[in-house]
Amino acid sequence: MDGNVFGGNMDFTIRAATLEDCKDISRMILELAEYEKVSDQVKITQRDLEQDGFSKNPFFHGIIAEVPEQHRSKDGHAKVGYSLYFYTYSSWKGRAVYMEDLYVMPEYRGKGIGKALMSKVAQLGLAAGCTQLNFAVLDWNKASLDFYLSQGCFDVTADMGYHCMRCEGEKLINLAQGDA
Amino acid sequence: MDGNVFGGNMDFTIRAATLEDCKDISRMILELAEYEKVSDQVKITQRDLEQDGFSKNPFFHGIIAEVPEQHRSKDGHAKVGYSLYFYTYSSWKGRAVYMEDLYVMPEYRGKGIGKALMSKVAQLGLAAGCTQLNFAVLDWNKASLDFYLSQGCFDVTADMGYHCMRCEGEKLINLAQGDA
Repeated sequence: MDGNVFGGNMDFTIRAATLEDCKDISRMILELAEYEKVSDQVKITQRDLEQDGFSKNPFFHGIIAEVPEQHRSKDGHAKVGYSLYFYTYSSWKGRAVYMEDLYVMPEYRGKGIGKALMSKVAQLGLAAGCTQLNFAVLDWNKASLDFYLSQGCFDVTADMGYHCMRCEGEKLINLAQGDA
Repeated sequence: MDGNVFGGNMDFTIRAATLEDCKDISRMILELAEYEKVSDQVKITQRDLEQDGFSKNPFFHGIIAEVPEQHRSKDGHAKVGYSLYFYTYSSWKGRAVYMEDLYVMPEYRGKGIGKALMSKVAQLGLAAGCTQLNFAVLDWNKASLDFYLSQGCFDVTADMGYHCMRCEGEKLINLAQGDA
């Protein structure tokens, strides 16, 4: 799945992530969390990504946006964007793909890289028989929300009343023990 | 993973779903959708469930709540509840389990069956190294929302501003083709 998504003369490529990309993915996960003002929430390390994404029965898959040598970032990075995704299931509609993250480094935005990453996730999902692409957005992140709406997405929470729910930590253990 | 979740004298068992349960799961998916007033949205058949959940690299897993012969429903059903779940990934927190459906037939509610199903999903998630159990609730479904809050869950949408987003149908194809 290597190659330029749209063909033509663009200065980046989109390709499947490998074990060797985990260091850069880990760096960019932290950059994204800083942008979302929650970097203290990130518990995942490079090693976790290597184990969870690149062993048998991986928990996620990744794609990477890479620029040629001459366009490296001021800090020397050639891997400038990524998306993590995995397959899920709707009991109404069947196979679905979930885009956990979509990130492009600030200095590379506005070049179609985010759109190309998202388009690749959609392609991979369709190829796997999925009928939906799902993801989540923070409601204060107006720029991202507008981008996604412009790409043909709709807001399931606003339009249909879906609320995301979670159980974690001590409460998850209580739930598992049957004494919640 | 057969057996009674809490031990003791309860008249139901929770066990892993098999291929042979797909007919009943399909029936209960439709019952749940009718309860949620969206049965026209259900495109999934028994055959889809068999293919997607019980072949190599399944898209989901299932558990079944079953009652003994003498407690069959008025329509003769012994399989009276189910949950579908699958493993996902948080780029902040790592492995997670997603509960797609949790359903108990109306005449079997209030007996702890829903709680036992959910507890089993939490157990399976913890055993697989997950730190979160995630799922979605419709905001008009106050009874379910209250149940989940009583089980130690919190509302990620209300508390943190998460919105679920989706792309499907023609728009997903456009997105994949890069001309969204």
